[in-house]
Amino acid sequence: MKIIVDAMSGDNAPQAMVNGALLAAKEIDADIILVGRGEDILQVMQQQGITTLPKGVAISNATQVVDMCDSATSVLKEYPDSSMVRGLKLLAEGEGDAFVSAGNTGALLTAATLTVKRIKGIRRAALAPVLPSTSGGVVLIDCGANAECNTEYLTQFAFMGSYFAKKELGIESPRVGLLNNGTEPTKGTELQKQTYEILKKAGDEGKLNFVGNVEARGVPNGEVDVVVADGFAGNVLLKSIEGVAIFMSGELKSIFKKNLITKIAALMVGSGIKNMKKKMDYNEIGGTMLLGISKPVIKAHGSSSDYAFRSAILQAARAVKSGICEDIAGNIDDIKAAVQ
Amino acid sequence: MKIIVDAMSGDNAPQAMVNGALLAAKEIDADIILVGRGEDILQVMQQQGITTLPKGVAISNATQVVDMCDSATSVLKEYPDSSMVRGLKLLAEGEGDAFVSAGNTGALLTAATLTVKRIKGIRRAALAPVLPSTSGGVVLIDCGANAECNTEYLTQFAFMGSYFAKKELGIESPRVGLLNNGTEPTKGTELQKQTYEILKKAGDEGKLNFVGNVEARGVPNGEVDVVVADGFAGNVLLKSIEGVAIFMSGELKSIFKKNLITKIAALMVGSGIKNMKKKMDYNEIGGTMLLGISKPVIKAHGSSSDYAFRSAILQAARAVKSGICEDIAGNIDDIKAAVQ
Repeated sequence: MKIIVDAMSGDNAPQAMVNGALLAAKEIDADIILVGRGEDILQVMQQQGITTLPKGVAISNATQVVDMCDSATSVLKEYPDSSMVRGLKLLAEGEGDAFVSAGNTGALLTAATLTVKRIKGIRRAALAPVLPSTSGGVVLIDCGANAECNTEYLTQFAFMGSYFAKKELGIESPRVGLLNNGTEPTKGTELQKQTYEILKKAGDEGKLNFVGNVEARGVPNGEVDVVVADGFAGNVLLKSIEGVAIFMSGELKSIFKKNLITKIAALMVGSGIKNMKKKMDYNEIGGTMLLGISKPVIKAHGSSSDYAFRSAILQAARAVKSGICEDIAGNIDDIKAAVQ
Repeated sequence: MKIIVDAMSGDNAPQAMVNGALLAAKEIDADIILVGRGEDILQVMQQQGITTLPKGVAISNATQVVDMCDSATSVLKEYPDSSMVRGLKLLAEGEGDAFVSAGNTGALLTAATLTVKRIKGIRRAALAPVLPSTSGGVVLIDCGANAECNTEYLTQFAFMGSYFAKKELGIESPRVGLLNNGTEPTKGTELQKQTYEILKKAGDEGKLNFVGNVEARGVPNGEVDVVVADGFAGNVLLKSIEGVAIFMSGELKSIFKKNLITKIAALMVGSGIKNMKKKMDYNEIGGTMLLGISKPVIKAHGSSSDYAFRSAILQAARAVKSGICEDIAGNIDDIKAAVQ
């Protein structure tokens, strides 16, 4: 297995990417290709006291860097020699099995769609992060790739999300819910009402374990294993969860820092709090898979640390091993039949 | 001032409503009319050892109760003698100054629109809860009344929310943000893009303190004082916040209950944790105002406790005193001009 890594994108590039790759290389049985400015990559390694490339780690030179603010649509034209575009082309050409980048989400999605291409029959690729929940994790699909969706997109997301949850979370028959503003079948806009009917039919036919509408409240509380949403609402869900987690962490911090007694209390529950933070933490979860692209492409968080980027690479390796892309492609007739 | 109270709706009716009203009566200088089954109301009072109606508290008889599951649109026709419909009619007829109910949101909204009516020129009433945030609170408008919205609705929500935040949160020039999946003006669906332009113009003209798009993450972190959303996305935001708060509270509980040492730690930070929970708690915040209705109508949480319902009644009293409805009506020309 060979994982291609965008060494230049993200807030902490190239340090976090290179260090993350070095961490990952120790944990997985895969070669890693670091794509980016060779000198910069080597410099990071030298700072770590590494003077020769570790076994299984290679560098592929790319001179440009895709800026976080650049327009997503022009990335192929304006940045042909960027680490992102070069890396994706290597993946498309079969020089590696998966690609990991912490770069601009829109640019990555566009460039991946144009170079690596979507799975035949899939209308739109979607972002599918795994969110923390009481049941151990829930796949959200989509969370921002497609602000405007139709019933066909949402139906495809439901199937792709279900296959992904089976592989990534190890759930035999993942419970799929449609994000809605109430649990009754008549809730939501026309988009949700129609999608509900389609998914219910697929559920009745045994193609999907559709459990109905799910409210946002039910997501962290583990009511479903997959939550299907248009990119706009999914983004609101994802970022609300992030926001409240930050808010409550801040509150906890000030509670424990108040005085000597509370500081002692902090020591007494330290491991528990640490575990909770770990559950809520992006750095552990890894990255977000672009489901629907023909090969595994993982978007790591823009502000990824060494460890977070390492987790994203590990996720890429899992995606290759699990064969999720092949799984979606192999079930495309079922997926297409559902919306007809 | 006279507050009309729906004594029969909500999960804990009539106990929570009657007890909540008795609590509120001690705190505010207002008369209270309890609408519902007289016997049931008196029975609750007797359980509290109260044998005669306290001064300023009256009962108005209504025999029916609106079930949580009934269709919202048929409430006036099917439940003409319900506590909800009777109470709203009293408000419409000027027998009181505000109405508080923990009943079915859809039914309340429909019945309020048909009896008390919207403020002239306002297209849709919206649900405007105050959410917890680091800055002390943020008004969310809408959070579920209108799943499908157009630019005019959202623009009106922005103005109403701004006036409301000024009164309810005491902020001179509330920062109004449009909920979006990114902060750039080009983000979102057509609805958000067009609304952004309208609100920006209103901001440039000094009619509104529009600070641009806001991501869901920025809401609990106090980036704005008012967040404008269609009812679908607003509902996702509201319920995500609820869901994560429940999730993290559960995690904390199990951390502190683990063993003797953690239990001691819990005692050491007890007051801090209690304060944090208070901040996140619906029971403190009160209810959700139906902004756009010509007189104050407050929706209390369906599962309101005595104390939560008391808070909703206090909020109703504040709404009457602040003159928020008159304020919206008085500024209707500005509101209408913004979308033209």
